[in-house]
Formats: sequence, structure tokens, C-alpha cells
Amino acid sequence: MDELTRYTSQIGNLDRDAMEKAQARLDSLVKPPGSLGRLEEIVIKMAGISGKLVKKCEKRCVIIMSSDNGVVEEGVSSAPQAVTYMMSLNFIKGITGVAVLAKQFEADLIVVDLGINADIEHPLIKHKKIRKCTWNIAKQAAMTREEAEQAILTGIEIAIGAVRDGYTLLGAGEMGIGNTTTSAAVLCALTGISVEQAAGKGAGLKEEAYRKKIEVIQKALRINNPNPSDPIDVLAKVGGFDIAAMAGLFIGGAYMRAPVVIDGFISMVAALAAFRLNPRIKDFMFASHASYEQGFAYAAQALGVEPYLHLNMRLGEGSGCPLMFAMIDAACAVIRDMATFEQASIGDEYLKEIKEGDNFTVLKP
Amino acid sequence: MDELTRYTSQIGNLDRDAMEKAQARLDSLVKPPGSLGRLEEIVIKMAGISGKLVKKCEKRCVIIMSSDNGVVEEGVSSAPQAVTYMMSLNFIKGITGVAVLAKQFEADLIVVDLGINADIEHPLIKHKKIRKCTWNIAKQAAMTREEAEQAILTGIEIAIGAVRDGYTLLGAGEMGIGNTTTSAAVLCALTGISVEQAAGKGAGLKEEAYRKKIEVIQKALRINNPNPSDPIDVLAKVGGFDIAAMAGLFIGGAYMRAPVVIDGFISMVAALAAFRLNPRIKDFMFASHASYEQGFAYAAQALGVEPYLHLNMRLGEGSGCPLMFAMIDAACAVIRDMATFEQASIGDEYLKEIKEGDNFTVLKP
Repeated sequence: MDELTRYTSQIGNLDRDAMEKAQARLDSLVKPPGSLGRLEEIVIKMAGISGKLVKKCEKRCVIIMSSDNGVVEEGVSSAPQAVTYMMSLNFIKGITGVAVLAKQFEADLIVVDLGINADIEHPLIKHKKIRKCTWNIAKQAAMTREEAEQAILTGIEIAIGAVRDGYTLLGAGEMGIGNTTTSAAVLCALTGISVEQAAGKGAGLKEEAYRKKIEVIQKALRINNPNPSDPIDVLAKVGGFDIAAMAGLFIGGAYMRAPVVIDGFISMVAALAAFRLNPRIKDFMFASHASYEQGFAYAAQALGVEPYLHLNMRLGEGSGCPLMFAMIDAACAVIRDMATFEQASIGDEYLKEIKEGDNFTVLKP
Repeated sequence: MDELTRYTSQIGNLDRDAMEKAQARLDSLVKPPGSLGRLEEIVIKMAGISGKLVKKCEKRCVIIMSSDNGVVEEGVSSAPQAVTYMMSLNFIKGITGVAVLAKQFEADLIVVDLGINADIEHPLIKHKKIRKCTWNIAKQAAMTREEAEQAILTGIEIAIGAVRDGYTLLGAGEMGIGNTTTSAAVLCALTGISVEQAAGKGAGLKEEAYRKKIEVIQKALRINNPNPSDPIDVLAKVGGFDIAAMAGLFIGGAYMRAPVVIDGFISMVAALAAFRLNPRIKDFMFASHASYEQGFAYAAQALGVEPYLHLNMRLGEGSGCPLMFAMIDAACAVIRDMATFEQASIGDEYLKEIKEGDNFTVLKP
């Protein structure tokens, strides 16, 4: 068994016992049963993942996979390739969208260089470069199968390392000019939806460039002919190092029994690829927001998840993850701090008593 | 001009100049224009409300209007009336849903007794009792027109007082057994939708009690015949002190140019009533979550607002408000902490330069 298969084949089940206990605890709290809706769903899922009631996720991080895509030479992106490099440094400086949101919701950033098209040395960037930039998918496969496996394994190892470092909640972000193009290609290959459905305008393409993007993706799929039932083949032929490494994050999180939050379109496509390697990995994922990027809804539907936040965001970087961390904080607060009916003096007997009386005793506070 | 009309007629416009400046600032930040979606919408609206870029909402509160409803004697609620009283004390103790969420997101609670059916004295509860419990709307009007005006004015004064005390962000919550019944009646009267559309199962009605609830609301509307174009008449005849006081919160917030967050069904119906008194009041409201309670979507549609969070919550109490405060915090962080393109060294000239070169200079960090 190869190393990757060893990880993907060792994903455990959710802990049903812990989930039942969480459900019972929720039902004992001073509220109508189920009335906290999806916050209760989060409590139960977190219990299933960790095997216990999760009362706080103190240490959490957004992991940003940075990598460049050869396909940008086709003119499919509104920003130049150098932006991948510059924004990767800007994450570290704490001045981008995901960086300020991570700070607001007390999350760390882990930036990983998988294939930025520049030489970077920075103590705060994890250097896991496979190669500077993938090849142009409109002309050939983005990478070899070995490179795809290496990128996925890198993601797995980063997730394992983060959990060993004490992180109990991970988010999957990315930076890579051109990666809505590669993500749309991967989504088409995995699901069979049309390129017109999968491809959106990314960071801000004009109509002509958008039509060009669709043609490029169609060409990439025709030339490379990825095998829909082999997600690694799909990632290698029409994906990117970023998407492959993010798929690895979802695998590694599930392997370590840690929740991983999905951000937007690219993150969702990576989650779908991981899910196709082993459906159990989905049990360890949380969708966050409904991205405005066109293909997102198809990817979410294929994965079978419902986002919690409706913010029309389409920034990427992992920017939706810290917002979802706040919702998970809310779920933790509910299970940690709410009183039971008994503690709140609203037990069955008391309720019966006051129901029968016309007026009821006023407890002096 | 009476006191209430004096307030409702003095609601200002949003500050268009501040909104344009906020838009320009957002467009200068290091992200594709508009890519932070509704977080940007929040930034702009907050600027319009306050006349400046809002970089932090340090002091915020959820205001809970507690009151009892005479209609509970018809058997329209799954919980006994005493729960209104007990939960009002539990808010103060910090052990209910809204209390733990408020604490999590650093918001205070302000509990107001408008008509709890018990004598309460507690230094942390604002005593604004109009009368113990409204009358049964299935038999007569809930209150006199004067009482309705008094409840609305109380809400206005509480909002004004909160803003004067330094709160810059308010949330509108409630506690009142039977208030999904009164809210559904108000919604039907204001919009003309059917009782079957407006009425849901509240905290957990069984099918038979639900049918009874529908009949009771139909009877209340028939007997009282509220005037759809007179929101005060509607609130007086089929509403409650809680709903009327919450409507007052929205008016008072708008009057003081402070944002008020809408929680769930009851809060949304109160917001709609305020909107019908003066449509400008809507400019100062933020929807928070899409409540699971059946009539919510109709009320939100009638008001013309889109919730940000999709959590299937139906607890009430104002529990959705602190979650929305976190989203507003996110918007504040974006406008406060994100760098501009210039600061992030991604200006037009620089982009042009690196676009032209085959490779680009790596800045040593």
C-alpha cells in the first residue's frame, strides 16, 4: 500500500456514542428542543469528530496553499501571476482579507509555498515547493501523477503537523492566480457538469476573457482527458499544486480526527476531490459560506454540504474560514455555558405546578 | 404632533457622502473589487448610518423585551406562561441561549419588563411594566391604543438611552410565551397573507395545538378587525407589549442613527411594523439569520431584507443578534486593518512592470 492510500484508507467513523451524549446534553438545555438549529448540528458533529463535547477551540488556523498555475499564459486571469507571490508575503504581514479576519477571530495563518513562481525565503512560509508553477493545462497535464501525490501528501503532512502543534480547528485556504480556471476544470472532470456551469468570472474577468476561459478549460479537458473515477488523475492533469495540497488538508484533518473548514470555490472543489478518495472524509468537514463564484453551488451540491453563511464573498484566501470559526465558537458557547432546565428551575414538576396555579410564586432574586 | 409621531417623523437619510467614501476605501483595498460581498455592504451601510467609517463597535447590547400574552389561555403555546418570568431572570443570570451568545461575542444584555405576569424586582431588569399581561386577542384587543403607544415609546426611550450610554450597536430580542401567535396575527394584518402561511409551530406545538393556534389567530383577526394601514392599531389589537416595544427599538435606533439588528420571527414582525410607520427606519436595520419559524420568510420578504446567516434557529430571545455582531465585527476588521493596493505594493505601475518582465524581482522580506 502506498503512503497516500495508507492515509486515505485510515479515516475513522464519527463517534456515535459521543454524538448521542451531545444530543442528550443539548436536549437538557433550557430551550425548546432543536431550537438552536444548525448550532446544535455543529455541537453534535464536533462531538462525533473528537469523541467528546467540544467546549472551546482555542488554537485554530487557516492554512493557505500558495502556488502558481501555468495556464495563466492563456490570459484566463485578470491579475498577473506575480500577485500569487506578493499576496503570499502579504498574508505574513497580516494585511490581506483572510489575515485581518483571522486576527479578528483569533486564528493563526500558516502559509505554504507549493509552487509559487519565484524564489521566496521567509521564516514564516513553509517551503514545500514541488516546482515553480504547474504546466499549462491547455497544452499538457498540469503535473505528473507523482507530483500530484507529493502535493496531496504535503497537505496531509501539514494538517498532521498542525494538529500535533495543538490546533483543534483547521481552515483550508489558497492563493494562486488562475486557480478558478483549474478548479472549474477539476469540477467538470469530477462531476460531468458543463464548463459553462463550472466556470465563473473569478476575480473580475471581462466578458471576452470569460469566453476565452471557457474555451481554455474545454481544451484542457479534451487534451488531457482526465479519468473521472480517479481524483488523483484529475488533479494531476487539470488541477494545481494548491488544489491538490488542499485536498490533502481535508484528508490529513480527517486522518487526525480534526475538523477542517471549507472556504469558497477552490476549497470546495478540493474538498470534493478528497471526498472522492474516501467519502468518510466529508464527516470531518464544515462548509462555511456560499461563495458567489459560479461553480461553487455545483461543487457544494456534489459534495452534499450546506453553507452556513450567505455573504456573496468571492475573495478566496480562506477568508470564509475565520467567519465559520466564530459560528463554531457560538456552538461551543452553547454547550459550555447554557444551563439545563433543572439548573434554570424549569423542570417538569415545577412547570406542572405553575401550570396548575392561576398565579405563581415569585422567587425573590 | 404627538410624541410618537415626533420620533417617527424625524428619521434622517443615510449619509450618501460617507457611503461613497466607504465604497472608495473598499475599492482601494488589496482584493478584487466587491469580492468581500456582503461584508462590504455592511461597511457601506454602517458608514451611511454613522456618517463615518466604523472601525469597531466596542459597546453593543441585545435588548430583550419581556411580556406576557393573554392569548395563551387558548392553549396556543407549548410552554406555560411562567416561563416568561423565569427566563427573564435567567437572562440576568447569563445562562440562556442569548445570554451565552452575547457573552461569547462581547455584548451586554438589557432586559425590560413590559408586562410580565408576575411582580419582579431586580436591579438588572428595567421596570417599564404597562400592565401584567395583555388581554386575550381571541376575545378582545390585546391592549388599548394608548397602551400600544406607551409600549412603542418605551422601546424608543430604551434605544435612545442605550445610545446615550455609549452603545453603538443594538439587537432586538424578546421573551413572551405566546408571542409567535401574536406575531403571526400582526404579520397577517400588515401583509394580508393567510394565517396558514404566517403561523408556525413556535417552540414545539403538536399538530392538534397547531390547528388550534391557526383558528385562534383567525378568530383574533375577525373579532378585532385591525386596520392594515395603521400599524399602531394592528399592534394594539392583535400584538403584544413585547412586539410594540421592539418596534419602538427600531424607531429609536433609527432616530439616534444607531444600527439595530433583527433577530428571528417576532423581531422581524416588529421591524416590519416600524417600517410601516416610516420606511426610512429600514435603513438602520440589519437582518441577522433566517429563522426556521414558518412566517419569518414572509415577514423578511415584506420588509425586503436578506438574512446573512442560515442556521435554522428558532429560539428567539434575540439569540441571532450576537452572531450578526460577529459579522459586523468582521466588516469593521476589513475596513480597519486591510492594506490598500499601494501599501501592499500591488499598484498599477508595479503590476505593469512585473507583467512585462518574464521573471520578477523577489523582495527580501
